Amino acid sequence: MKACIYPGTFDPITNGHLDVIRRATKIFDKVIVAVAKNDSKKPLFSFEKRVNMVEISIQNFKNVCVEGFDNLLVDFAKQRGINTVIRGLRAVSDFEYELQIGYANAALWEDFETVYLMPSLKNAFISSSIVRSVFLHNGDVSKLVPVEILEILKAK
Amino acid sequence: MKACIYPGTFDPITNGHLDVIRRATKIFDKVIVAVAKNDSKKPLFSFEKRVNMVEISIQNFKNVCVEGFDNLLVDFAKQRGINTVIRGLRAVSDFEYELQIGYANAALWEDFETVYLMPSLKNAFISSSIVRSVFLHNGDVSKLVPVEILEILKAK
Amino acid sequence: MKACIYPGTFDPITNGHLDVIRRATKIFDKVIVAVAKNDSKKPLFSFEKRVNMVEISIQNFKNVCVEGFDNLLVDFAKQRGINTVIRGLRAVSDFEYELQIGYANAALWEDFETVYLMPSLKNAFISSSIVRSVFLHNGDVSKLVPVEILEILKAK
Amino acid sequence: MKACIYPGTFDPITNGHLDVIRRATKIFDKVIVAVAKNDSKKPLFSFEKRVNMVEISIQNFKNVCVEGFDNLLVDFAKQRGINTVIRGLRAVSDFEYELQIGYANAALWEDFETVYLMPSLKNAFISSSIVRSVFLHNGDVSKLVPVEILEILKAK
Amino acid sequence: MKACIYPGTFDPITNGHLDVIRRATKIFDKVIVAVAKNDSKKPLFSFEKRVNMVEISIQNFKNVCVEGFDNLLVDFAKQRGINTVIRGLRAVSDFEYELQIGYANAALWEDFETVYLMPSLKNAFISSSIVRSVFLHNGDVSKLVPVEILEILKAK
Amino acid sequence: MKACIYPGTFDPITNGHLDVIRRATKIFDKVIVAVAKNDSKKPLFSFEKRVNMVEISIQNFKNVCVEGFDNLLVDFAKQRGINTVIRGLRAVSDFEYELQIGYANAALWEDFETVYLMPSLKNAFISSSIVRSVFLHNGDVSKLVPVEILEILKAK
Repeated sequence: MKACIYPGTFDPITNGHLDVIRRATKIFDKVIVAVAKNDSKKPLFSFEKRVNMVEISIQNFKNVCVEGFDNLLVDFAKQRGINTVIRGLRAVSDFEYELQIGYANAALWEDFETVYLMPSLKNAFISSSIVRSVFLHNGDVSKLVPVEILEILKAK
Repeated sequence: MKACIYPGTFDPITNGHLDVIRRATKIFDKVIVAVAKNDSKKPLFSFEKRVNMVEISIQNFKNVCVEGFDNLLVDFAKQRGINTVIRGLRAVSDFEYELQIGYANAALWEDFETVYLMPSLKNAFISSSIVRSVFLHNGDVSKLVPVEILEILKAK
Repeated sequence: MKACIYPGTFDPITNGHLDVIRRATKIFDKVIVAVAKNDSKKPLFSFEKRVNMVEISIQNFKNVCVEGFDNLLVDFAKQRGINTVIRGLRAVSDFEYELQIGYANAALWEDFETVYLMPSLKNAFISSSIVRSVFLHNGDVSKLVPVEILEILKAK
Repeated sequence: MKACIYPGTFDPITNGHLDVIRRATKIFDKVIVAVAKNDSKKPLFSFEKRVNMVEISIQNFKNVCVEGFDNLLVDFAKQRGINTVIRGLRAVSDFEYELQIGYANAALWEDFETVYLMPSLKNAFISSSIVRSVFLHNGDVSKLVPVEILEILKAK
Repeated sequence: MKACIYPGTFDPITNGHLDVIRRATKIFDKVIVAVAKNDSKKPLFSFEKRVNMVEISIQNFKNVCVEGFDNLLVDFAKQRGINTVIRGLRAVSDFEYELQIGYANAALWEDFETVYLMPSLKNAFISSSIVRSVFLHNGDVSKLVPVEILEILKAK
Repeated sequence: MKACIYPGTFDPITNGHLDVIRRATKIFDKVIVAVAKNDSKKPLFSFEKRVNMVEISIQNFKNVCVEGFDNLLVDFAKQRGINTVIRGLRAVSDFEYELQIGYANAALWEDFETVYLMPSLKNAFISSSIVRSVFLHNGDVSKLVPVEILEILKAK
């Protein structure tokens, strides 16, 4: 059985993330969405809420689950016995940072693999930071995030 | 009559911004320089001062005016009935972020157009963040910002 | 009256080009699509055919016309008395080359302006080279180029 | 059973390619290395030789095979009933072209998936074009390509 | 005698920095590692500790020394009578920022020169921010920073 | 005595190249401009002419000389007993290719060093390919190349 971890801050989960998850389920037998606590980044939404929004968004996927983590990604992966991480690729700046992180992780765990998936074009421009910006200015985020989390998002 | 909006934080306005404004006046009949309040970014200069510095810098341009805004750019643009935004392009990382923002805005308002203008080479390296860095270290910013704002800048 | 030139090899014209032309007509009163002869690049389609395909594609636009040119873009622009060129921006590598060309042109003619327009997301991945590749392998290009040129394209 | 296609010109196959193949075998049950005939690119090595060098390089992998193809990648994939393609990612310019190709393929076949794998750092700088350049100047390519093909490579 | 300055925040010094220093000593007769106080960046390690860690790391190099600075780099360089600065290059985003800074510095001091050195591949992915992230999650940084500073690093 | 090699096709030498050479003379005691024969690239100007144009351009520099080479750069460098190569950096795409080449060379000769220099802003957009394009269309290249080679350039 091939499993993978999809790590991120998910502040909040977007349609772009969901697109990547959907693609991952076609390749892997199990996908763990791993929500980083990431206090140093000062996320807009609380850790509990971010985990909860992922939970609601993935409820129709079989073999996808959500977990929080607060340690180094490589250590979390080792604990789960899973050496493959998936990442969505959007822009060039993404890509570079991803490469850097990927090589750093490989230095920490030789067997660590990073697999990059590409969201479909219509989701390619969506990022959590853009969602937060639209949300904070009372704009309409209904095309940017899973419809199921709209209510909980606004309950902030 | 063709009008456009030139949005930004202008913290502070630089010769690069002014170069873009000058080019915009050759193409558009009216240019609104829109200063974002952007409290979350914690600008160095106060909103009032940033608006004021733009005002002083554009006083010799006809058909250019300054306005502040605190809502989503797309909403501000709709209120003004102007669907075209101009942006200056400098570096690749700029460009990517611009594309992302541009597509996000187009998702929020289908008719939204973004037009990119290129400052002349000698202004291409100037950014507000470099000006702030030089300024905060008591360096000479007189070649980087409009000469008219030098006094008000230092009055901080 | 504000006019602009949209230069390129158009080997062949794509939906991405057409998207840029449509946007240009909203900003400029007149758009000249300028097809470069470009023998050194060894285009797949003949100069006459490339001009012809542009002609057919733009027939529903008012104030858009096509012209061929075989000299330096700056010289062509000077002859027409038009100092503004538009370019479509897609990817980062595009962007860099564009900046280089833009600065080179500005060195040759100080008043030369380059204005960059962004095709909509669904046209952002289309390039003439991808169209040629699909076409040469007998793939379906009907979503990539204006439907009006499909017949003439295949008549090659 | 999950299968994937690894397409390329392989002119010639390098240690970077082999690294990607090895990683793919950990994720997929079957990997088809698909050598493009690509006459328009004027490869240095003949189609037969390129296929042969791949064959020799992969002989120790189970579930990896080589095939040549001369049609559109999407059509080749459809014929094999495999909708997933893998690509190695090295540099930013790679990445952009890959995205463009990926979106073009997805436009031709909605179910088409592209999965990007990252070679290990020590293979990250190797490209076929660098191998060809070293080879043509009688340099030592023994650290750049699989040792098994060294003899056949030189037999050119 | 040719001297150069190697400026940075060094929060903390990494094997990548040390690699650049080693290369610089082959080209220049004297290298001043200049640690920026940089309070606005809110470094993880105190200024004194960052200077101290550099000091320990360079003790085996002849003609390399460390100094702190709190003014504009160009002003610090002028005070030392040294017009050449070295920088390590890793990724594209580095590179762009570097160019911008380089041109800004050249605008402030015409004779200012920036020389870029490339760390070896195995050090190319290491950045201070990745070291900090691993360190803060109690990961193993012993392959990422000079072994001499490990103890002082943990004494935080 | 510190020497370096400045390799390239120089088809033809530009003001950007000359800018890099001038900067190199401030750091190194001797600079060998190494003109690659590069027949596979099909240069516009003959090898002899390219060497000759460099010769004329550097006549006022002491300690700069020109040589042609037709083997691998690393081998040429070894023959001269010089392990340091300089390169000019302009754009991001340059940079990536440079890194790739740099790492490939380091794999072939462990002691090989590449030092990157940045031309001044006004020369940053000049490339040989833009010069060739302007030249072939009878444009004015007098601001792009050393004035001393203008006559020989046109004598083609």
